[in-house]
Amino acid sequence: MRDLVLYIGNRNYSSWSLRPWLALTAAGIPFRDEVILFDFPAGNPGLKAVSPTGRVPLLVDGDLKVWESLAIIEYAHELFPDAGLWPKDRAARADARAIATEMLSSFHALRNACPMNIRRPVKAIDLPEGVMDNVARIETIWHERLARSGGPFLYGAFSAADAMYAPVTNRFEIYALTQDPRSRAYMAAVKAHPAFRAWQEAALAEPWIVPEDEA
Amino acid sequence: MRDLVLYIGNRNYSSWSLRPWLALTAAGIPFRDEVILFDFPAGNPGLKAVSPTGRVPLLVDGDLKVWESLAIIEYAHELFPDAGLWPKDRAARADARAIATEMLSSFHALRNACPMNIRRPVKAIDLPEGVMDNVARIETIWHERLARSGGPFLYGAFSAADAMYAPVTNRFEIYALTQDPRSRAYMAAVKAHPAFRAWQEAALAEPWIVPEDEA
Ligand SMILES: N[C@@H](CCC(=O)N[C@@H](CS)C(=O)NCC(=O)O)C(=O)O
Ligand SMILES: N[C@@H](CCC(=O)N[C@@H](CS)C(=O)NCC(=O)O)C(=O)O
Repeated sequence: MRDLVLYIGNRNYSSWSLRPWLALTAAGIPFRDEVILFDFPAGNPGLKAVSPTGRVPLLVDGDLKVWESLAIIEYAHELFPDAGLWPKDRAARADARAIATEMLSSFHALRNACPMNIRRPVKAIDLPEGVMDNVARIETIWHERLARSGGPFLYGAFSAADAMYAPVTNRFEIYALTQDPRSRAYMAAVKAHPAFRAWQEAALAEPWIVPEDEA
Repeated sequence: MRDLVLYIGNRNYSSWSLRPWLALTAAGIPFRDEVILFDFPAGNPGLKAVSPTGRVPLLVDGDLKVWESLAIIEYAHELFPDAGLWPKDRAARADARAIATEMLSSFHALRNACPMNIRRPVKAIDLPEGVMDNVARIETIWHERLARSGGPFLYGAFSAADAMYAPVTNRFEIYALTQDPRSRAYMAAVKAHPAFRAWQEAALAEPWIVPEDEA
């Protein structure tokens, strides 16, 4: 039996940690997690000591270290090809990888101005240039796929593509970035998923506040 | 027989186009390419009309559009699993995907300050903060893998991971960013690969100059 360990950051803030954690949890893949706190080096191994990039998430499988959220998902998909991490249909899977990769490479304005923050109450902020362009592109991505699949998730059943966009559903909600009913229904579906709820519950129990992530 | 069409930008400048073009060509995967020029909209279909993100590369397979360099490589890997796009060993493949994804998500200082430019003569420039940190991390990535594989490429034979770093080998050369002999040997090996030479030859035959990419 493999002992997969996923190192993650503070659940309240670490959007990149949430992505593979949610994908693997929703797919029923067995793993343990270890939290490495941001900004609280004492008593913790420290990001740099554990992770080749000094960042989380990081998956450890014996001697092997796999970093980058998307590479972790691909490795888990190789170990558990039938767990449904990606859609079963080949064309849908290619599309899912395209939008998952676009999440990774893009949307810097949104990511910088609007940090994920699970416990934050809804409150709009002044938005720098570029954020609403990011929002528009993401809503196009969501609406096209939801129209095709019929929902509740981008390809019908929950997949790694939904996990890659899950932190964005939190951002759209807490900074009040959209009132579009199709987007709101999708955001609600993600928030109601048992794996997301488990993450949220653990995040709400965290005592730590990281000032630079409080927008 | 599939008719795969890879839309690419100007070969002299388009680093993201080079990546999947090189990976697929080196792996012997049959495809056609179509150039969509930057900054020369007249007489060309225009990026926005063809590509969902308004960016290249874009792979078209019948009705299916796949964008994002890494997603294109994964789709080609599914169609041609024995072409050697990724290393054969599972742990090496996971490592290759981690560094390929890190290329996609990181190194913004280097990417912004030092555009790829196939025809540019070697000439150092003033480097903004962060560039040499990117160079150091990339050299660590290369040296660790070359030490393990024995070279000439990161995992021995040429793989998609080398293709993802190929534009960086050009940048390191033309902006004189490293004199490390291990790095220089690796850069020379990439430059001597027949697929890279074919790209280079076509790039050198291009007449177009894009001022903002001339650092
Ligand atoms: N592209 C990476 C991003 C990883 C990342 O930026 N992680 C953040 C936490 S969400 C981190 O570790 N930051 C700590 C630091 O940069 O010092 C991935 O997809 O895994
Ligand atoms: N993350 C994307 C990057 C694509 C990209 O930025 N492509 C550039 C050319 S190298 C582009 O199309 N730029 C045109 C534009 O942004 O208008 C990928 O990996 O494919």
